Amino acid sequence: MEVTRKSFKDCLNLVYTAVEEADFLAIDGEFSGISDGPSVSTLTNGLDTPEERYTKLKKHSMDFLLFQFGLCTFKYDQNDSKYITKTFNFYIFPKPLNRSSPDIKFICQSSSIDFLASQGFDFNKVFCQGIPYLNKEEEAQLREQTEDRRSQQANGVGTPSFISPSSSKGPANVPDEHMGYINRVVEKVEALFASTDKTIDLEPCTGFQRKLIYQTLNWKFPKGLHVETVEVDKERFIQVSKVDEEEKKKMEQQKLEREQCQLNDAVGFSRVIHAISKSGKLVVGHNMLLDVMHSIHQFYCPLPEDLQDFKEVTMCVFPRLLDTKLMASTHPFKDLISNTSLAELEKQLNESPFKAPRTEAAQGFPSYDTAKEQLHEAGYDAYITGRCFISMANFLGSFLTPPREYVSAQSKLVEPFYNKLFLMRIIDIPYLNITGPDLQPKRDKVLYVTFPKDWKTSDLYQLFSAFGNIQVSWMDDTSAFVSLSQREQVPIAVNTSRYAESYKIQTYAEYVQRKQQENEKQTPASKSWTEDRWLKSPYMSSGSSGGFGYPRALRKRGGSPITAEKGSTEAADGWSDYSFSDSTGSKKKKTDEVVESKTSEGWLNATDATESFGSSPMKSPDEDGADLAKDAEGTLGWHQASASKATPARKSPKNKKKSEASSPSSLFEVPEVW
Amino acid sequence: MEVTRKSFKDCLNLVYTAVEEADFLAIDGEFSGISDGPSVSTLTNGLDTPEERYTKLKKHSMDFLLFQFGLCTFKYDQNDSKYITKTFNFYIFPKPLNRSSPDIKFICQSSSIDFLASQGFDFNKVFCQGIPYLNKEEEAQLREQTEDRRSQQANGVGTPSFISPSSSKGPANVPDEHMGYINRVVEKVEALFASTDKTIDLEPCTGFQRKLIYQTLNWKFPKGLHVETVEVDKERFIQVSKVDEEEKKKMEQQKLEREQCQLNDAVGFSRVIHAISKSGKLVVGHNMLLDVMHSIHQFYCPLPEDLQDFKEVTMCVFPRLLDTKLMASTHPFKDLISNTSLAELEKQLNESPFKAPRTEAAQGFPSYDTAKEQLHEAGYDAYITGRCFISMANFLGSFLTPPREYVSAQSKLVEPFYNKLFLMRIIDIPYLNITGPDLQPKRDKVLYVTFPKDWKTSDLYQLFSAFGNIQVSWMDDTSAFVSLSQREQVPIAVNTSRYAESYKIQTYAEYVQRKQQENEKQTPASKSWTEDRWLKSPYMSSGSSGGFGYPRALRKRGGSPITAEKGSTEAADGWSDYSFSDSTGSKKKKTDEVVESKTSEGWLNATDATESFGSSPMKSPDEDGADLAKDAEGTLGWHQASASKATPARKSPKNKKKSEASSPSSLFEVPEVW
Repeated sequence: MEVTRKSFKDCLNLVYTAVEEADFLAIDGEFSGISDGPSVSTLTNGLDTPEERYTKLKKHSMDFLLFQFGLCTFKYDQNDSKYITKTFNFYIFPKPLNRSSPDIKFICQSSSIDFLASQGFDFNKVFCQGIPYLNKEEEAQLREQTEDRRSQQANGVGTPSFISPSSSKGPANVPDEHMGYINRVVEKVEALFASTDKTIDLEPCTGFQRKLIYQTLNWKFPKGLHVETVEVDKERFIQVSKVDEEEKKKMEQQKLEREQCQLNDAVGFSRVIHAISKSGKLVVGHNMLLDVMHSIHQFYCPLPEDLQDFKEVTMCVFPRLLDTKLMASTHPFKDLISNTSLAELEKQLNESPFKAPRTEAAQGFPSYDTAKEQLHEAGYDAYITGRCFISMANFLGSFLTPPREYVSAQSKLVEPFYNKLFLMRIIDIPYLNITGPDLQPKRDKVLYVTFPKDWKTSDLYQLFSAFGNIQVSWMDDTSAFVSLSQREQVPIAVNTSRYAESYKIQTYAEYVQRKQQENEKQTPASKSWTEDRWLKSPYMSSGSSGGFGYPRALRKRGGSPITAEKGSTEAADGWSDYSFSDSTGSKKKKTDEVVESKTSEGWLNATDATESFGSSPMKSPDEDGADLAKDAEGTLGWHQASASKATPARKSPKNKKKSEASSPSSLFEVPEVW
Repeated sequence: MEVTRKSFKDCLNLVYTAVEEADFLAIDGEFSGISDGPSVSTLTNGLDTPEERYTKLKKHSMDFLLFQFGLCTFKYDQNDSKYITKTFNFYIFPKPLNRSSPDIKFICQSSSIDFLASQGFDFNKVFCQGIPYLNKEEEAQLREQTEDRRSQQANGVGTPSFISPSSSKGPANVPDEHMGYINRVVEKVEALFASTDKTIDLEPCTGFQRKLIYQTLNWKFPKGLHVETVEVDKERFIQVSKVDEEEKKKMEQQKLEREQCQLNDAVGFSRVIHAISKSGKLVVGHNMLLDVMHSIHQFYCPLPEDLQDFKEVTMCVFPRLLDTKLMASTHPFKDLISNTSLAELEKQLNESPFKAPRTEAAQGFPSYDTAKEQLHEAGYDAYITGRCFISMANFLGSFLTPPREYVSAQSKLVEPFYNKLFLMRIIDIPYLNITGPDLQPKRDKVLYVTFPKDWKTSDLYQLFSAFGNIQVSWMDDTSAFVSLSQREQVPIAVNTSRYAESYKIQTYAEYVQRKQQENEKQTPASKSWTEDRWLKSPYMSSGSSGGFGYPRALRKRGGSPITAEKGSTEAADGWSDYSFSDSTGSKKKKTDEVVESKTSEGWLNATDATESFGSSPMKSPDEDGADLAKDAEGTLGWHQASASKATPARKSPKNKKKSEASSPSSLFEVPEVW
């Protein structure tokens, strides 16, 4: 269901009901751009810490506009074993509602706009019919202003714009040059009393004149008159009405209601986010970090400086999140799913070993034809995301004994995926953990190298030619991370640089320490990313094979610079693995000219096998079952889960052989937590 | 005629012809915003120097996108005594043409977007069908790249993306892991030689693999094969074709032509600006400073830091400009025209004492119905602007003896208005003089006041209460210009502040001196605005009555934040004169609460009579007639003009009495220059 400024008011109750009755919600946003940096790759160094990545996204992405928001609610119908869906596609635009509204500026990125245009995105609908919004602070300000005005008017002090401590109820102190004008107004009002008309509109005048009129009329006609400033097409004029006390009260009551109404109109789309937030329902998204950041930034409050604060705000606004891209990239899905882009994921999840979920649009809501892709309409994307979640959740039921076809959104089976948001292109940290400390990979094969501005990737290959294959992640023009393939070579490499003048090599640990010291100097009280929560966590356990690389097949689709998951640098580059893509981003032209390391790819391909950081967002055993007794909603899921725990289901599902090759032995094992 | 990406190529020759044959051109631009500062008023302090204003506009306006460009060409048909018009309305968007195209980011201002939306502006057409463009530097880069690639290919070094000094014509050094892949490609090509097919497309592969393929095929099949990387939907793959030497040459020729074609496509809309520029024709615009700045910035080069440099660049790009808003605000028009907004100007110029110009759309071009306003479509605005110019130019002919109905764009009568661009809301400098020094008003009644952050306009009124009426122009939170009404009070006011702690008062001269010193410290070699060209100029002569205020009637129209001429702060404020509007801009909320100076308006109204800076952009007598002999084109106009000079036409036109009241005695006098 398309929702615009016109239809928003009428739809709002539908939205409230849909959210209230839903088992879970899926969301998606479309933005006017992704990165205002020189290139998307500046946002995504493969060795960013979560803190660094957050800071980059905050700095380079929040000035874009979230201008389409998709919400799809999913309600399970037990009798028919299917989900009933209600999809809303909201157009959003910060139309200045009146002259005191903030005049928002936002950035557009031409590649993003061009991409959306090619997908048939309707910009006219956004700009002409977009729903306005206010964040919490703006809303509070507006409420306060309205309240102030009301109490002032209750005190008989007239005009909304010009209240001065000296404006008594005595005669207005009218400057000579305005005397004639004011006298004419008074004459007009006296004529109104004499006539049968009820109302006159005065001519538009200056604010100062309005003030004089209010003061004069309030003083001359303390009773029987209602004076109000009316704004039509951003032009203000005064309306004077003859009224008895009854009518006067009624008009004031109406005015109050009108104001309340205007206020709600101004809060606009933010009310939808408030409803989602208040429901506490599971909110599912695909690669949803930017969606979450934008939603909070635009409809709640400016994003906090600190990642930890962001996590806390996020938990207030969206207490339960699930990222289908992260889920699909995690055991037991990661080895069954070759491409986690939304479109490809949806296709794969309709096929064995998965099952297409049964969903049906509620009456009056659009039923999408998934065959005719309408991808990148936010409502449709939200719908598809929800379907992907259902398929994956249900698939988890196949590991139970006996297997179950349906696994609810509240099931304990799903819980391990809660509140972990996919991190793009970080080599060894697959997700941002909203409710706990982030993973802390050792990075003990990583060197931090600084060098002259004219160095290219080839110079780094040259420099490290003695140390076998390397992997380069550019930081900026004069520094990069270089990952060696063997840990033993790290001290040797550092040593050789001791007498070098043009470049400098540090270990990753040294780099981190120096950064920490710099941070402490700059902001003594601020939390730095090396603090306690960055200490060795239970998540550090070495997982099974594989990082979070981008499968080759991904590149076969045209890149969408909008969802940030198929950014053009990555999708279009056609250059081996994602990790290498990092090194060809901002430095692309340079490497294009001189890539010489014929074997670079070979090593990159080998990465999959040699790098083995933890990549499963499962809860650690000691956390497991803590809140067991509290879980009232998720009974079905939980009983199954505990059953499965009692009798670990090590049986592989039927379609094991169909899955793609070269999977390590642990592939289909149910993680311990179940 | 609407011109989009699709039709651009076909239209270009039409544009060239139209520009070539025209007597003059009119232009207009629509932008995605006006000011990215906190409010439009920050751009327009009433006492800005031209340098300051330029710097502000450059800083706060150039990140918006000029996304619609109107061009209307006017050719005089002597037989029918009418102009034949050709109107083009170009949609413009920096679509990234390929992966190496710059990914432009631009700002949108919601008030501007909302305004355009309300006018029925088609954003979809801009974003889906906008014509791309490159500035001169980008164009040069692209040409160089293309040239490089061509010469490399001529040397037999294959792929455009991967050229390395070591890529010899020997066998490619294929790493083991790619050996299988490359061998399969070679087999495919051998199969091609054996088959009847002419061409095979290889599967998309990585850039590294492409490089290996090029090297291998170049070495294995030095003849009979044409290998080319094809890009379709931003995905690259290699196309291999069997060819004889004849065909090979032909294919290479075709490729060259294709590249040239692509290059021209990329330069896109800039070619229109190049054509306008090269023609040297008079370019007319309404309030055109931003149009000129954007056109240069977007299609030529980033704007220079320095105003003088900007003037020079402008003269290169648009050697002859005329601003109808400035013309309408200048004698002999200023006292006949109450409102110089484009819409109002057009209306007034269709009525006596002016005459509606006779124009007719050329065959195949749209003929606009000026009754059904289509304002704010750039093409239409350009058309209307041209008509306004014709009316005003012809009106000048009425001062000649004998009067003439037609005055050409090249006439000496029009020359005084050349290259003077209207300056918004500067109290005492009506225009930016592109070809000479700017006006230098004395400002000897102006004080520069600094004060604590919490001061409001009312505090300034309080402070200066002893000095009669004042006029406040806010600079920022802690400083403002305060104009006194009497020069004698300046030293007294400065004196009283001597022992003040919270605030400080300087004369304008002191302020200028300090700023100059600061500038010299910062950039020793840079030109500051107090240099020679700011010295007393012949323009300093006191003109007749009136500054360049905004008539009240203007406020009756809804404000257009787009053309910057009816910005919302000004139009919507409803607060007395423009000069006061300056003081209510960024500080609006503050003044709203406490405006107490009952007499402020009175003085402001009096300003018209008391302030009398030069406001006629006429040439000074000593400059007049300098290039007389050279003027070949403007014969008609010139002969009339010199005739009128010989016999000064002091006769008033017929409709004098109809003109609005209170005009000073000099109203209809023909300025001396004629």
